[in-house]
Amino acid sequence: MSELVWSVNPFGGAVVDPKSVSSRTGEFATDLSSAIKRWHEENLKVAWLEIPKASFSAIAIASEQGFVFHHVTEEYAMMTIQIEDNAFVPPYATHYIGIGGVVINENDELLVVSEKYRAPGRGPGYKLPGGALLPGEHLAEAAVREVFEETGISTAFEALTFFRHWHDYRYGKSDIYFVARLSPLDNDITIQEEEIAECLWMPLDKFLNEDSVHLFNKTIVKSAAEHEGLKITTIDGYQPAEKFEFFTLS
Amino acid sequence: MSELVWSVNPFGGAVVDPKSVSSRTGEFATDLSSAIKRWHEENLKVAWLEIPKASFSAIAIASEQGFVFHHVTEEYAMMTIQIEDNAFVPPYATHYIGIGGVVINENDELLVVSEKYRAPGRGPGYKLPGGALLPGEHLAEAAVREVFEETGISTAFEALTFFRHWHDYRYGKSDIYFVARLSPLDNDITIQEEEIAECLWMPLDKFLNEDSVHLFNKTIVKSAAEHEGLKITTIDGYQPAEKFEFFTLS
Repeated sequence: MSELVWSVNPFGGAVVDPKSVSSRTGEFATDLSSAIKRWHEENLKVAWLEIPKASFSAIAIASEQGFVFHHVTEEYAMMTIQIEDNAFVPPYATHYIGIGGVVINENDELLVVSEKYRAPGRGPGYKLPGGALLPGEHLAEAAVREVFEETGISTAFEALTFFRHWHDYRYGKSDIYFVARLSPLDNDITIQEEEIAECLWMPLDKFLNEDSVHLFNKTIVKSAAEHEGLKITTIDGYQPAEKFEFFTLS
Repeated sequence: MSELVWSVNPFGGAVVDPKSVSSRTGEFATDLSSAIKRWHEENLKVAWLEIPKASFSAIAIASEQGFVFHHVTEEYAMMTIQIEDNAFVPPYATHYIGIGGVVINENDELLVVSEKYRAPGRGPGYKLPGGALLPGEHLAEAAVREVFEETGISTAFEALTFFRHWHDYRYGKSDIYFVARLSPLDNDITIQEEEIAECLWMPLDKFLNEDSVHLFNKTIVKSAAEHEGLKITTIDGYQPAEKFEFFTLS
């Protein structure tokens, strides 16, 4: 007879050993309902059930017994159940993070792109190069990478100067779009053909007065041109550097 | 005979109608493998399969046929499959967002808390009140709410002055912790008994020189005390106000 194995964490949570989750659904259903009974008897608050890919058939059983999804990866599904009414379950990730780069050269020209895919009938709508952070990527890195990928221009990160918080952005989750000021290290544009229709150095004044440029884009460029912004700083004891990134005013 | 129904989105993605997902696993397995064949014939890039709670038994079948989890809610699981090799699948939320409040009163005293649950052997380690954003909550709102919940002090949001980016924070996802400067609207502390051991107004100088206070906390308080920070701004055309929040330097 196989039975579920679990440990209890410091917050009164039963944490089931994924290796003890059976893919035989009849057996798992019996194991799980006995376990839930025990968790109530032991006055636990929450149970955490990680179901490995090989046992995904257990998901439907756990759902029938009151478990809900917490998060998933390609390799497992994490489900939870509140044993105590209204017990606190720390939420999963809630936000998307993106960054755009304001790159102004020594001739007071701004690096702008227009995207290939845009709503029909709209003008070119020049905007900043930028995009979403890769997993584990720093904001400064992401800004430099996105600008390079879309325009071929190498840059150095200077400061963060603006950001926008936007709820219900995609699949009910929120988005934060940061704006970075970067200094160009060269001037020769190489367009990324797949996504970018046009890329050019546009006189800053023209961009700020161009009708087809969205007010949001004018606002963030103006802000980056006029303010020092938040610079990268370090704090002793936070290592490795790839894991932590700090921004402060100077 | 029931068959999967789908539409094709502008990015070459087949989007399966969740109502056509059968909870009868044998039938679903046949339907899905025919559909995958069709998607290849039609040169689609990606397929999106939303499986409603009532059909969670279909998850294991879809996984066996090459689908991987994209994201989950309490009501459904979204799975995807790349029909074209390396097709782009827009990622799901990647970050947790939290905020702490620097509240300094007219006597140059800082509002600090110490948490009930902390590593044994550690000192009280006074820190800022704060916590994670609720779904759809603005940063300014969250700072004011967390300070009030933990300390009973009502405040008004002034500015953001610092932030920390931390990778692999929980379940492999990253975290951004913002620091807000808030002005106190009253002085009478009411501790939240459940999580907070101590709450007091501490002379700012003392906090900045106290050995038991973590360098990170000293750094962010100093930054908030010395700089104006990023203020809330608005941009015409972004409505409703609950959906968008903008921060800029002034």
